[in-house]
Amino acid sequence: MAEWQRTHTCDELREEHVGQTVTLNGWVLTDRKYGKQIFIDLRDRYGLTQVVFEADNADLFTRAGELKSEWVLSVTGVVRKRLEGATRADIATGAVEVEARTLRVLNQCPTLPFEISEFGTELANEDLRLQYRYLDLRRRSIQKVLVLRHRLCKVIRDFMDGHGFLEVETPLLGKSTPEGARDYLVPSRVFNGEFFALPQSPQLYKQLLMIAGYDRYFQIARCLRDEDLRADRQPEFTQLDVEMSFVEREDVIGIMEKLAAEVFDKCLGVTLPLPFPRLSYAEAMAKYGSDKPDLRFGLEIVDVTEIAAASEAKFFQDAVAAGGVVRAINAKGAAAAQDAKKAPLFSNTALKPGGELAKVAETYKAKGLAWMKVEAGKLTGSIEKFFSDGLKAKLVERLGAADGDLLLFVADSEAVACDALGALRGHLATRLKLYKNWWEEKAEHDEAEKKKADAAKKRKEQYAPVPFQPRPEHFNFLWVLDFPMFGWDAEENRWAAMHHPFTAPMDDDLPHFFQNEGLGKVRAKAYDMVLNGYEVGGGSIRIHRQDVQSRVFEILGMTPEDAQARFGFLLDALKSGAPPHGGIALGLDRWSMILAGTTNIRDVIAFPKNQKARDLMTGAPAAVDARQLKELGVKLS
Amino acid sequence: MAEWQRTHTCDELREEHVGQTVTLNGWVLTDRKYGKQIFIDLRDRYGLTQVVFEADNADLFTRAGELKSEWVLSVTGVVRKRLEGATRADIATGAVEVEARTLRVLNQCPTLPFEISEFGTELANEDLRLQYRYLDLRRRSIQKVLVLRHRLCKVIRDFMDGHGFLEVETPLLGKSTPEGARDYLVPSRVFNGEFFALPQSPQLYKQLLMIAGYDRYFQIARCLRDEDLRADRQPEFTQLDVEMSFVEREDVIGIMEKLAAEVFDKCLGVTLPLPFPRLSYAEAMAKYGSDKPDLRFGLEIVDVTEIAAASEAKFFQDAVAAGGVVRAINAKGAAAAQDAKKAPLFSNTALKPGGELAKVAETYKAKGLAWMKVEAGKLTGSIEKFFSDGLKAKLVERLGAADGDLLLFVADSEAVACDALGALRGHLATRLKLYKNWWEEKAEHDEAEKKKADAAKKRKEQYAPVPFQPRPEHFNFLWVLDFPMFGWDAEENRWAAMHHPFTAPMDDDLPHFFQNEGLGKVRAKAYDMVLNGYEVGGGSIRIHRQDVQSRVFEILGMTPEDAQARFGFLLDALKSGAPPHGGIALGLDRWSMILAGTTNIRDVIAFPKNQKARDLMTGAPAAVDARQLKELGVKLS
Repeated sequence: MAEWQRTHTCDELREEHVGQTVTLNGWVLTDRKYGKQIFIDLRDRYGLTQVVFEADNADLFTRAGELKSEWVLSVTGVVRKRLEGATRADIATGAVEVEARTLRVLNQCPTLPFEISEFGTELANEDLRLQYRYLDLRRRSIQKVLVLRHRLCKVIRDFMDGHGFLEVETPLLGKSTPEGARDYLVPSRVFNGEFFALPQSPQLYKQLLMIAGYDRYFQIARCLRDEDLRADRQPEFTQLDVEMSFVEREDVIGIMEKLAAEVFDKCLGVTLPLPFPRLSYAEAMAKYGSDKPDLRFGLEIVDVTEIAAASEAKFFQDAVAAGGVVRAINAKGAAAAQDAKKAPLFSNTALKPGGELAKVAETYKAKGLAWMKVEAGKLTGSIEKFFSDGLKAKLVERLGAADGDLLLFVADSEAVACDALGALRGHLATRLKLYKNWWEEKAEHDEAEKKKADAAKKRKEQYAPVPFQPRPEHFNFLWVLDFPMFGWDAEENRWAAMHHPFTAPMDDDLPHFFQNEGLGKVRAKAYDMVLNGYEVGGGSIRIHRQDVQSRVFEILGMTPEDAQARFGFLLDALKSGAPPHGGIALGLDRWSMILAGTTNIRDVIAFPKNQKARDLMTGAPAAVDARQLKELGVKLS
Repeated sequence: MAEWQRTHTCDELREEHVGQTVTLNGWVLTDRKYGKQIFIDLRDRYGLTQVVFEADNADLFTRAGELKSEWVLSVTGVVRKRLEGATRADIATGAVEVEARTLRVLNQCPTLPFEISEFGTELANEDLRLQYRYLDLRRRSIQKVLVLRHRLCKVIRDFMDGHGFLEVETPLLGKSTPEGARDYLVPSRVFNGEFFALPQSPQLYKQLLMIAGYDRYFQIARCLRDEDLRADRQPEFTQLDVEMSFVEREDVIGIMEKLAAEVFDKCLGVTLPLPFPRLSYAEAMAKYGSDKPDLRFGLEIVDVTEIAAASEAKFFQDAVAAGGVVRAINAKGAAAAQDAKKAPLFSNTALKPGGELAKVAETYKAKGLAWMKVEAGKLTGSIEKFFSDGLKAKLVERLGAADGDLLLFVADSEAVACDALGALRGHLATRLKLYKNWWEEKAEHDEAEKKKADAAKKRKEQYAPVPFQPRPEHFNFLWVLDFPMFGWDAEENRWAAMHHPFTAPMDDDLPHFFQNEGLGKVRAKAYDMVLNGYEVGGGSIRIHRQDVQSRVFEILGMTPEDAQARFGFLLDALKSGAPPHGGIALGLDRWSMILAGTTNIRDVIAFPKNQKARDLMTGAPAAVDARQLKELGVKLS
């Protein structure tokens, strides 16, 4: 071991080490000079240790005075107890410090483009932080996230291995089979004019592994989609990809619930109650206007078509006459709710076209938002007049309306009414603070603990903040089942697969499936795992019959020749002894975000792209040499 | 659970299950009809179970008679003991069979393009097997390899996690920084005319993680190189990528030796002796003519320059006068060695220009191969006459020559002599059978065990073959150290990095490094892990000083502007508080091959490409839609 190499990390020293000569390696986090002493907090991945330079060692003291933030040091010294009152209860090494005897500067640095901020300080602009990602990655909060992500993957692999799943790597260089999202393409140098596609998922490979008899497969797999990025999307993402043979839906659901419980136990110390509740797609859409409803709050959508149609309101009558529906949400207490300044949370302006609430509905294509309030036992508002007392009583009963409630109505096609009210439901829950994300509760908790610590400090006492412990109620898991197999794509004027074209139809719906009538009614053996309103997993029982798979391709508008050219290998494989099989994929970026308590996907990825899919650190993508393009047989157009 | 679903796998039933009603799922491996009984071996990933259909259940018996190889079945029946004499000692379920009561055919298939061969039967043509890869993957031998590969990765991850390494994912879409192999490129749709590059390794990202303070990183990472394929190469490969901060060479070597020991213990039951021996690059080249020598056999290269130069042989004198060397190998016993037909293994023809042995030397650019034999205590051969008795005695002593030996000489530049004799050394070892790969020994062992089992069968006895156990001697590990930092690239007329441009020079050699003289003498802090003549790992201590890194780029011929444009982010990072760091990468495909006992890289990859980098199953690469290209701003040239 070289002289400069550490004997301990910056998180290891305790009172039992007092008197020992040790060497630490790390970065200068902070330095403070008090007359005859210079104190340095030395930081590494593991923790902090205080290093003291005493003025009586003049040369060392001078050199210590020149140290700057983020310089890399090797310090050899003797461990000693901190003075009474100088101990820290909030770090593991807080009882001791190292009195420096030898200082080696392993690397210097000028002032950096921004400060390595910790909690509570303002972060620099995100573009700047992405450009100097290696500096931003020094933040303790990001380090914790990447440690957690490592732990998540380890727990998953231990679990899958323990349950007989084999991790098998599938190719990155595959075939482009346009269906769904856009592929990233890779030109072939050997076969000019031909391209590989990077995988959107290992779907077909994992099915082929089942056909090959591997029985239980998994992979933590990198996938890529060349889509325009939303806030929570990246061009590359990681999924836990799972496939099982000789299974039904219940087998996949059962094993995934166990996995989720293991992950939450090992990563967050939370015991999830099993089994997860279930909703059919139809029920989820009708009650919550979403196929991934957040059930941490109520605000259920209620059908009031019959009552509204009987009213004098022409817009209700017309909608129903056109085959539409009238649906409503009772926003409990929303009419009486006030903001911090005691003003109404939702004024009438919020309800007018273009107003806060109406706009949400309009965004989801609702033609308008009708409303009533309940005040002093009476319904009020501009549409109240269209309702007889009898109808009003029915409405109040159906919606469980009471004083202070705000009743919101959308009259439209069922799909639009569900979508619009589903979006309103989410919006209202946020504004009415009907739920709290666990990290929001943690922030409040930490703030309170910090106050206690500060108060203790004033009393010259120590206070070790109590860490926050998330609870099962913070995590609302459910399964959404019985999805429709096909959705009508009005733009392309054809049926599209709701999950993907390899999902099996329900056995009971096979008669419909093989006819051309009622294809919209065919349900798929698909299932989504939903957590707090996010789809955190999706899967299905797959088609293992070649005739069924061919029929799906036909329904999707492919000629037999098309299907053969694009998916011939799958069709061949299905008539080579394919077992019944099914699986699921879980989005690990999303899982990491929820477990880490962040809403920024770039926090859980070491080297993310920005929203234009550019890596601001390396500058990728970038121009390449003409020679490279020539070899690939492509030119810029 | 559905009625057809298995209660047990095909490897679970034992005598204790006799009398139980069970359901099995699997594939028809073989079927045999004996009068009133039909026997089916049902196969799944886990094993085999014999199923019997009795003629007294007429309907079932008829249907069983129609079953074909590779059909997928669900069979419900009762477990019973096999008849005396019909038990099998070679499979775990060999004591019992299942008397079928219910048969469900889950999927049928026509006759397949080739038989799913097991050991000992002829394999179909590899192209056909790659086209129907999902069928070839059904072979038990390939299944075992993929199970082993899963185990290898699991053991590695457990070990790395246990030693404080974090697995961090690095991007697939990166920047093209041409240096070394050819990049696979990915056109950007957002920034037309710009390209991502797929990673040849996560080298720079892992260094940036060290600079960011992550301390111990690893990743089982997919890497890609667009190179013409050799037999043991694939466009995609997988490496264990490791990086550590505040380390010296010994730290990396130490942890990797422990990892290797863990892997061999857990995957093969072999206890490797630690530490591994070490050789300097200079010694490896001089003694073995290779920087990855196979030390399972001797045949060391010996310097005889002085003796040869003193002889009358003009070709020796000339070579030495031109600054060259004369090196020799004593191929012990090779002169006397005979082939199976008792003919000399190496006739004089093999030694003439273009002959078997001479050709090996010529391939490596030697101008010729000189030789002598030792017969009845005397040196013989056409060049014997150039040597005086005194020189002959010196030669015999220097080379330890004895009756039956063949002495081979190459006079050339040191590099050519080492290369040529190194190649000859390997060739001779194979021909003289100086070593056996463990799988070759296993094949002999298995053959012998099979004979015992067959003999036992004739005696109407059972014999359970003893499994082969590899031994530590089968695995010759060593470290090669002290590589030159730069090699002269005569083609490009510039210095090139021997390892990669981020490798640190030896501290003692820094004076040379900063001058322009003696760059060829600068040694690098690089190290290779070698196993049985294969490089199974390579790494180095990296440059953590910005001035040193800039100097390397300068030596490699980059202008400061070039260096900044291509590697500016690295140069910036190195002056942001970079700690000393180093690491290594292990080629997991090669590790899998050695552990699995195969010399075909396609055996250890689930879905490999052929030697033209084409996937014969999906047909990738393939033509894509004009619309896709248009979006990417490229056209075919």
